[in-house]
Amino acid sequence: MKESYVRDLKPGSSVTTTFLIRTKERKTARNGSAYLDLELQDSTGTIKAKLWDCDSFDPAFEVDDVVRVSAGVEVYQGTPQLSLRKIAKCREQEIALSDYLPHGSQDPDVLFESLLKRIKEMPPGPLQALLLKVFEDPEIVRKYKLAPAAMSYHHAYIGGLIEHVSSLVQLGDGICDHYPFLDRELILTSLLLHDLGKIEELNFSRAFTYSTRGQLVGHISMGIEMVRDKMRLVPDFPSELWDRLEHVILSHHGKLEFGSPKEPMFMEALAVNYLDDLDSKIEAMRQQYEADKDRPGNWTARNRALGRELLKPPSEPVSHAAPAKSSSSKV
Amino acid sequence: MKESYVRDLKPGSSVTTTFLIRTKERKTARNGSAYLDLELQDSTGTIKAKLWDCDSFDPAFEVDDVVRVSAGVEVYQGTPQLSLRKIAKCREQEIALSDYLPHGSQDPDVLFESLLKRIKEMPPGPLQALLLKVFEDPEIVRKYKLAPAAMSYHHAYIGGLIEHVSSLVQLGDGICDHYPFLDRELILTSLLLHDLGKIEELNFSRAFTYSTRGQLVGHISMGIEMVRDKMRLVPDFPSELWDRLEHVILSHHGKLEFGSPKEPMFMEALAVNYLDDLDSKIEAMRQQYEADKDRPGNWTARNRALGRELLKPPSEPVSHAAPAKSSSSKV
Amino acid sequence: MKESYVRDLKPGSSVTTTFLIRTKERKTARNGSAYLDLELQDSTGTIKAKLWDCDSFDPAFEVDDVVRVSAGVEVYQGTPQLSLRKIAKCREQEIALSDYLPHGSQDPDVLFESLLKRIKEMPPGPLQALLLKVFEDPEIVRKYKLAPAAMSYHHAYIGGLIEHVSSLVQLGDGICDHYPFLDRELILTSLLLHDLGKIEELNFSRAFTYSTRGQLVGHISMGIEMVRDKMRLVPDFPSELWDRLEHVILSHHGKLEFGSPKEPMFMEALAVNYLDDLDSKIEAMRQQYEADKDRPGNWTARNRALGRELLKPPSEPVSHAAPAKSSSSKV
Amino acid sequence: MKESYVRDLKPGSSVTTTFLIRTKERKTARNGSAYLDLELQDSTGTIKAKLWDCDSFDPAFEVDDVVRVSAGVEVYQGTPQLSLRKIAKCREQEIALSDYLPHGSQDPDVLFESLLKRIKEMPPGPLQALLLKVFEDPEIVRKYKLAPAAMSYHHAYIGGLIEHVSSLVQLGDGICDHYPFLDRELILTSLLLHDLGKIEELNFSRAFTYSTRGQLVGHISMGIEMVRDKMRLVPDFPSELWDRLEHVILSHHGKLEFGSPKEPMFMEALAVNYLDDLDSKIEAMRQQYEADKDRPGNWTARNRALGRELLKPPSEPVSHAAPAKSSSSKV
Amino acid sequence: MKESYVRDLKPGSSVTTTFLIRTKERKTARNGSAYLDLELQDSTGTIKAKLWDCDSFDPAFEVDDVVRVSAGVEVYQGTPQLSLRKIAKCREQEIALSDYLPHGSQDPDVLFESLLKRIKEMPPGPLQALLLKVFEDPEIVRKYKLAPAAMSYHHAYIGGLIEHVSSLVQLGDGICDHYPFLDRELILTSLLLHDLGKIEELNFSRAFTYSTRGQLVGHISMGIEMVRDKMRLVPDFPSELWDRLEHVILSHHGKLEFGSPKEPMFMEALAVNYLDDLDSKIEAMRQQYEADKDRPGNWTARNRALGRELLKPPSEPVSHAAPAKSSSSKV
Amino acid sequence: MKESYVRDLKPGSSVTTTFLIRTKERKTARNGSAYLDLELQDSTGTIKAKLWDCDSFDPAFEVDDVVRVSAGVEVYQGTPQLSLRKIAKCREQEIALSDYLPHGSQDPDVLFESLLKRIKEMPPGPLQALLLKVFEDPEIVRKYKLAPAAMSYHHAYIGGLIEHVSSLVQLGDGICDHYPFLDRELILTSLLLHDLGKIEELNFSRAFTYSTRGQLVGHISMGIEMVRDKMRLVPDFPSELWDRLEHVILSHHGKLEFGSPKEPMFMEALAVNYLDDLDSKIEAMRQQYEADKDRPGNWTARNRALGRELLKPPSEPVSHAAPAKSSSSKV
Repeated sequence: MKESYVRDLKPGSSVTTTFLIRTKERKTARNGSAYLDLELQDSTGTIKAKLWDCDSFDPAFEVDDVVRVSAGVEVYQGTPQLSLRKIAKCREQEIALSDYLPHGSQDPDVLFESLLKRIKEMPPGPLQALLLKVFEDPEIVRKYKLAPAAMSYHHAYIGGLIEHVSSLVQLGDGICDHYPFLDRELILTSLLLHDLGKIEELNFSRAFTYSTRGQLVGHISMGIEMVRDKMRLVPDFPSELWDRLEHVILSHHGKLEFGSPKEPMFMEALAVNYLDDLDSKIEAMRQQYEADKDRPGNWTARNRALGRELLKPPSEPVSHAAPAKSSSSKV
Repeated sequence: MKESYVRDLKPGSSVTTTFLIRTKERKTARNGSAYLDLELQDSTGTIKAKLWDCDSFDPAFEVDDVVRVSAGVEVYQGTPQLSLRKIAKCREQEIALSDYLPHGSQDPDVLFESLLKRIKEMPPGPLQALLLKVFEDPEIVRKYKLAPAAMSYHHAYIGGLIEHVSSLVQLGDGICDHYPFLDRELILTSLLLHDLGKIEELNFSRAFTYSTRGQLVGHISMGIEMVRDKMRLVPDFPSELWDRLEHVILSHHGKLEFGSPKEPMFMEALAVNYLDDLDSKIEAMRQQYEADKDRPGNWTARNRALGRELLKPPSEPVSHAAPAKSSSSKV
Repeated sequence: MKESYVRDLKPGSSVTTTFLIRTKERKTARNGSAYLDLELQDSTGTIKAKLWDCDSFDPAFEVDDVVRVSAGVEVYQGTPQLSLRKIAKCREQEIALSDYLPHGSQDPDVLFESLLKRIKEMPPGPLQALLLKVFEDPEIVRKYKLAPAAMSYHHAYIGGLIEHVSSLVQLGDGICDHYPFLDRELILTSLLLHDLGKIEELNFSRAFTYSTRGQLVGHISMGIEMVRDKMRLVPDFPSELWDRLEHVILSHHGKLEFGSPKEPMFMEALAVNYLDDLDSKIEAMRQQYEADKDRPGNWTARNRALGRELLKPPSEPVSHAAPAKSSSSKV
Repeated sequence: MKESYVRDLKPGSSVTTTFLIRTKERKTARNGSAYLDLELQDSTGTIKAKLWDCDSFDPAFEVDDVVRVSAGVEVYQGTPQLSLRKIAKCREQEIALSDYLPHGSQDPDVLFESLLKRIKEMPPGPLQALLLKVFEDPEIVRKYKLAPAAMSYHHAYIGGLIEHVSSLVQLGDGICDHYPFLDRELILTSLLLHDLGKIEELNFSRAFTYSTRGQLVGHISMGIEMVRDKMRLVPDFPSELWDRLEHVILSHHGKLEFGSPKEPMFMEALAVNYLDDLDSKIEAMRQQYEADKDRPGNWTARNRALGRELLKPPSEPVSHAAPAKSSSSKV
Repeated sequence: MKESYVRDLKPGSSVTTTFLIRTKERKTARNGSAYLDLELQDSTGTIKAKLWDCDSFDPAFEVDDVVRVSAGVEVYQGTPQLSLRKIAKCREQEIALSDYLPHGSQDPDVLFESLLKRIKEMPPGPLQALLLKVFEDPEIVRKYKLAPAAMSYHHAYIGGLIEHVSSLVQLGDGICDHYPFLDRELILTSLLLHDLGKIEELNFSRAFTYSTRGQLVGHISMGIEMVRDKMRLVPDFPSELWDRLEHVILSHHGKLEFGSPKEPMFMEALAVNYLDDLDSKIEAMRQQYEADKDRPGNWTARNRALGRELLKPPSEPVSHAAPAKSSSSKV
Repeated sequence: MKESYVRDLKPGSSVTTTFLIRTKERKTARNGSAYLDLELQDSTGTIKAKLWDCDSFDPAFEVDDVVRVSAGVEVYQGTPQLSLRKIAKCREQEIALSDYLPHGSQDPDVLFESLLKRIKEMPPGPLQALLLKVFEDPEIVRKYKLAPAAMSYHHAYIGGLIEHVSSLVQLGDGICDHYPFLDRELILTSLLLHDLGKIEELNFSRAFTYSTRGQLVGHISMGIEMVRDKMRLVPDFPSELWDRLEHVILSHHGKLEFGSPKEPMFMEALAVNYLDDLDSKIEAMRQQYEADKDRPGNWTARNRALGRELLKPPSEPVSHAAPAKSSSSKV
């Protein structure tokens, strides 16, 4: 079991524990000797590390390996970093990957069971059949439970995709209760499948990166292909429904400039676009609040997804706050 | 009681009934004689009308008057219009204005009672107190029940504003059930007040137009003023809550280029922006479908709010549609 | 054989010939009688037509039928139109569709043979194998020879797609001769396949329209599907080549706002984007010049594709023009 | 009295003087000991400072305090900074705040008297009455004389707002002399009040920051509220004038994307927008020239307000410059 | 002398007078006979005209000729038009062109003398020398007095350019009085020369049109050429001043997207851009007010230059308006 | 002859050789002593250098001088830099400037001869005459052979302009072979002259910078002037051809926002715009590939000209690549 985590390292102390190698670069110091400049990662964060005079070691590890290190915790330009004394690659069987990758607060298996249950409650028909083809494919299921929902913008952790979709399915049921003329099955199916391509667009077995195919083709077009392959397995999938479902997935970014080649042309497509966007932005805000909870003042740093600073929530809901002592400037 | 409605006029028939004068212009015919070119309106639509040789009449009516006419129903360039034989102004006491203005399908009084009930269920505090100040002001209540939500884009009929807000309050409760960290009272208050300025921005006692103040200042800034005046009546309204509520109202259009001078800077502001936008667009789509329900083909005309043609809903929900006979092009 | 063409109709004359029905609408005249308002089409253009008192006829024809008419050629608001005396549907076996649809100046069969020859000259390998899978599929070939390249912007006629592609293949060979580091086979394959989805996006067996699937999904995504289906039939199609080819097709519009979900990320994708855009715009200009060749003055009407008026070419190339009599304002 | 100023510190020398604390952060050095990383400020600029081994001190001061320091002036990465030997908080009564805040070259009291004189020369009427309500309110006057006109873009110093407005009032009188159909009183009133909200949007008693209300609501909306409150105190303020004045203030940024919820809809609104923008940009340029007057070459650094580098003025006006020795490249 | 003007024609009357032929098109009537569809122009406006059965006439006139007509004044679709009985070309010597072209209210000769006087008051030096080279060139002077400032946006009448420049020179002197660090001679010279290219960009001897060279090259680049030719005639024109003056002219539209290939990079360029833009927009507003002075209501039609409707000025300046009877909604 | 080049310096070694001074700044070290911070350049790249305790030297050299140095090669933050022991200015006669400036792989003299040969093959006429006026002007020819095509975006090396133009002339001949209706002489002339202003816009005798005139006026407007001067020397240059040629040069950036004051209005202008843009981007990509050829992974760094990362070419053309071992995810 992993002994210490990035989040808990104290400047001035010593540490012996394991990390994932995120980046590794060989550099030359001013005195001409070689050193390794590393970035290490575990589930709680990342930290820079230096291995001085590295040529006297046998640094038999690469990016994405897990290593055991002994190191001193120092501070450089206000940020903690490790000065390594020992480093060696761990054996694969010693590694619990979940110790090294960020993950969410909910259990992906539980979320998946809940989604599957919701699918089975749907009225029988081509959409339910399609969903079962997808969510009974073990290779898809394995990746669907692990994938992050994005590289960094929101839900950027193991299990992030299924958390995001689980939230959306509940929102989708709510919106269909409210607007009874919406086609509930089409909306739920679209929400469950809209980001299916993410499981191939991103590499997430170790550090998160785009796959080359992901960067060249993108998750929308990759997801459409995966959905088409499963629709073909459903006998007599209705042609108009086929086109509508493809359209909802293609248009779910809402605008051409956000990478959707078509903009929503009917109600269900519009609703899926809005729910997806809202849930992503709410989660991006939530993460920003968490990241900046120790930052002094009322405001977070600039949030990249929204392009602006955010006002932090009050410690207690403002609508129940005690009255201000003096509101003279208002009256 | 009004005898006939625009929607039911048959080409070739004669009609005697009442209309509201929407526009009136005196023109000269090719033969040099004067005629009146009119647009008439009732709750079901508008129709053009001509009064030939009008100088022999005493056309003692103006725009926004209600008149009684006898006329033949003709067709000009494919569109029905009236050739007037008689026209005279009605006495005010004969007029039920609801016969002449478009209105929605729900009873504004019922909707209002329901909103008031929801307000009274809120926990006591400054926001509930503010809402009661607003919704117990009889002049506001009278206009709030009548106002359309927009000139033409969505809910453009008597009672449209309160229909839109009633829908939003339900959506707001749903979204707060889903994201428990949202401040429910702030969201509900914002939804109830975000378009309050509309009751002064638009003239809607007869034909809908912008008031001069509405066009110069706009409903956001006018609404902020009305809300400020009521907040001042609530003793010790908390200063931070005051600023947050103003921000949600100011930013509810979401982007500077849509006329909000600030963009949403915390979760509640973001949620209000998305719900308002979604409900407006869903309703704009619904109206387009209704307007084009007799138009041949699968597509509506170009919807001005969305800037594109819409695919009509299938006659039965597509997800239950019978399988297409041949889906060979897909497999 | 068709007796007369739209282009040759003379006001004041009578005509008996055949046309395709492009639009048909029943309207009511001022006198209450019904008439048909039609738009007729042949390979040289379109003309409006009226069938007065149509209820005494049995108008047993619909849009997209071919009819035989007897009519007088009149002028209405400066534009010729037909006043129909007789109209009857033709039997299908009498119809040569090419008489009724606009077509280009080159023979699609000849162009196709030439493309096939070029494909067969390519070095053997997965791309040639893929192209043969596509261009030996008889259903694809049939449509590929007929399809227009666009609804109206450029090459908007039967055979327009294959004319456009034939031009591009020659340009592609030229550009690869010039930049020897480009991958010629990838560029040629991409040019041949980039608009493959057009054969399903557009309906062109009679009047040109978007198919519902075409409008919902678009030719890029539809073409990708068709290419994927054929790539799967090529044994061991290399994975990286697969991704690159998809990327070139996806990105051939060059920018997100033009409907490409990815922008060109390597040289071959960039080159295909530029050649396609250049050839389309040159052809759009050529058509504008032809349409406005009788328009007085040096300038065409506003070209929709380019958003501006065009300077017409000089009657003889300007670079050989005789010197201006007085160029005093220049010296 | 303050002994030395930031502008005059010489690397290699020692200094004992007072500064305002602008930022303060506790950090850990490589050797594990704690130090304070500070930014110090006076009316001539800012300088970084380090207090090493700070735990042996009692650093009983906070941001916005004034401190007395003894320090050595060093250079770090080409920039001077202080290495502190002693630091202690000053007593409030010793402090002349004007020593620590940047201020302009003109005396705000003199400028204010001049504005008041101009107001009193206006013809009596509701606008003059309104201006007197505003400029005889001592709390407003106190802040109006101190406020900067912007955080950093232009006139970013104590007294900057009143300098900007004084310049505008003169420009406004000039423009009304030139275009006699403009409403002079409306223009002058608008110029005097257009940025009134700035006195609450910004905190400027110590370091300049946005207030939370300023960031959430903005100076335009805050200023409108302050003006409305004063208009209500003027008996029978004409309704149309009220709306016009609000419109000029709301629209003075000229475009929605610059934060004005309305764009100028009559001449006076347009003129106020142009004069405000011109005076701000001229001053932004003037500051850039001053900041870069020792920078080698003809060009300034990139100006953030204009988004480009500026050509410096010639040492003597170019129109009187001696002729170039050789202008051969021009002839 | 011209007997009647477009502005004064009364429906139902007869008229015999002269007009300029603006457009002329031969069409065929429903009955097969030919007619001429004309647009006629004089200094007060334009009117449509029809010459029926034109083949029995000898219509020996062309666009830009002046003709004498006898006609009846009719109304077609609410707009007056002429039904011609006689039409014949006038002899050139009978024509005072000023009767047929719109012109402003000020005398171009007087304005020119005033500009020349201002130039002569400038301190001697290269800029004054340049201006004298330009404004003592008789061919330039002749056109400079006649040219409109724009095709339609503002000052679109004979003498419009010199009115616009005269206004700008006064504004320029004012701005230099206000900002004493500006280079007055550079600003005045730039204002006098910034639109010099307009005298060749537009044809204005008869109806206003763009010249082919004007449309291909544009007045900025054409004006630069004319200024360069004159600068070369000034001995030893200083090189830096040469570049600055070119820059001010090139950048006077302020932004790339408005056709300036460079954006203002020093104060004088910025000031010229703002003054030119302000004077053009004020004049565009003034023309709109005049055009819509009989339009009912407070608002003009949409102004094309500003892209919005304008609030008309009050009949008396609002700042002196009587108080509104009830301003209860404000308090 | 230069002994060593930047590209070949080894950390830890010593070096004695010559460099061009690119930047030079005097700074103060932490210990109070002065040092020089330099950037040195030769034809293979640039390197930072420090001269410690510089006051004991007599640093009698300036930016753009060539110096001889003795130095140790160190590494600072992962990048090599020089610690200078000796530095002295070289005498001008010892310097071969081509050792210090980046240059392309082709010989400008050879390229120029080839262009001249192509010009002489053109049919005689005003365009050939113009080209000979330009390319027989020795001052133009000297600079034309040296100029880079851009500061940094593409062909940013000595001889870059003539390489770019040589490529374009070949492309131009190809496009005219393909589209026979294009005016070949106009296209070739435009390609040869479109960037003529670059030879004055940029300073390139030492380090590349914009000239002040270049930054104020720009190469398009400067080039137009040079072309006009030469056109005036061709007797009876046809007026329409003059305007067309100016238009092609003015519009060759294609869009207003890229600095062209006019957008292409006929085919030849469009073709020149596309060829220029394509050749620039292809070369920008080629340079990026070369710069990043040792960078690990499939992707380059972000290319500034295109605003995105580029996929590197495969080591062998992908269309001939061996099949992927497993393409299971595709089938």
